[in-house]
Amino acid sequence: MGRPRTPLLDRRRIGAAALRLADEKGTLTIPALARALGVAPSALYHHVSGRDEIISLMREELVLTTGGDKDWSQPWESGLEDWARTYLSAFAAHPGAVPLLATAPLAEPFMHTMYEKVAELLFAGGFPARQVMPVITALESFVLGSALDLVAPPVMLSDVARDANPHLSTALDHTPTDHSRAARAFDIGLRALLTGFRDLLNH
Amino acid sequence: MGRPRTPLLDRRRIGAAALRLADEKGTLTIPALARALGVAPSALYHHVSGRDEIISLMREELVLTTGGDKDWSQPWESGLEDWARTYLSAFAAHPGAVPLLATAPLAEPFMHTMYEKVAELLFAGGFPARQVMPVITALESFVLGSALDLVAPPVMLSDVARDANPHLSTALDHTPTDHSRAARAFDIGLRALLTGFRDLLNH
Repeated sequence: MGRPRTPLLDRRRIGAAALRLADEKGTLTIPALARALGVAPSALYHHVSGRDEIISLMREELVLTTGGDKDWSQPWESGLEDWARTYLSAFAAHPGAVPLLATAPLAEPFMHTMYEKVAELLFAGGFPARQVMPVITALESFVLGSALDLVAPPVMLSDVARDANPHLSTALDHTPTDHSRAARAFDIGLRALLTGFRDLLNH
Repeated sequence: MGRPRTPLLDRRRIGAAALRLADEKGTLTIPALARALGVAPSALYHHVSGRDEIISLMREELVLTTGGDKDWSQPWESGLEDWARTYLSAFAAHPGAVPLLATAPLAEPFMHTMYEKVAELLFAGGFPARQVMPVITALESFVLGSALDLVAPPVMLSDVARDANPHLSTALDHTPTDHSRAARAFDIGLRALLTGFRDLLNH
C-alpha cells in the first residue's frame, strides 16, 4: 500500500517554507517548520517521512526555481562554467540554508541525474575517473563560499588604518565598493579553477 | 570615562560561547548567548557593545585557537597555501558559524593585520593591485565551502542507480568513501586555484 502520494502543490509548499525557514534561522526542525506552515507536526508527518525528505524537497524547490534545462553538449569548460553560475544564483538566494544543504547526503534521483550530466561532461573532456568527483566537489565548494560572499556587504573590510596596512589599503583602493566586488572575485576564482583543472588534464 | 575594560578571560569566554552557539544554532542572538553564559542580557552588555563586538570576539577566539605565527617570508604560492590550510582547520571546527562569520564586516584591526600580510605576499609575487582582493576573496570562498564539505558525510551521493547514472557511478567507484574524500577535493581545488592565479600573473 505504501504512504499515499502527496499532491505536488503541498510538497512544493513544504519545500519552499523549509527553504525560507532554514535561510532565516540557519537550522531546520520539524516543530518550527510545522509552526511556519500553520499545521501540527503530526500533520506534517502525513506528507513527509522526516527531515531527510524535507531536505530533498528544499533541493527540489531550489532546482525548480532556478532550473531551466542546461545545454550539456558544450565543451567541459563552458558546461562547467554554466553549471557553476546557475548553482551560484540558486544558493545566493538562500545563504542561510547553505550549511544545511551542503552537508546533507544527496540521495535524490533528480540530484543524481544532475551529477551524472556533470560527470559525463568531465569524462568527455578527458578527465580520469579518479579526478571527476574531486573536480566537481572543489567547484561546488567554491560556489557555496561565493554564494555567502555575494550576500555579504559590498565593503567587507572597513576602517582599515592606512599607515599600519599599506598593502591592504592599496589593494582596497583598487577594489569596487559595490556588489561588483563579489561578482569580480567569483569571476576571477572561476577562471582560475577552470585554468587549473585544464592543467590537471595536461599532466 | 568610557566602558570599563573587560579582563581577557571574560572576553574569551564570551567569544568561545558565541562560537559554540552559532555553530550549533546557525544564528546568534544576544538573549540566547546570555542564556548560554548563564547571565542576564543586561550583564552581557556590560562586557560588549553589541552583536558586532561579539562577532569580533568569535573571530579572535578562532584566531587564538588555530593561530600560531605564520612564516610570511615564503613565495606567494606556498604562503597562500599555508594560509588556506590554517583557515580551513579554523572554520571546519565551527561549520555552523561559517555563514555568520563570512558575511559580517571585518572591522577588527587584528583581522586587518592578517589581510595586510596576505596582500603584501601577493604584491611581492607581482600581482597587480586590482587583482589582490579578488584573489584573496576567491581563495576564501573556496576555503569556506570546503570547510562545510569537510564536515559533510564521507559519502555524500548515496543510493545512486548505476544503470541510470553510469558516468557518475564510475566516478564514485574511484572516489574514497572516508574523510579523505573531502581532503582530496580540497587539495585538487587548492592546487587548481594556485595554478590559475599563477596564470593570471602571466597574462
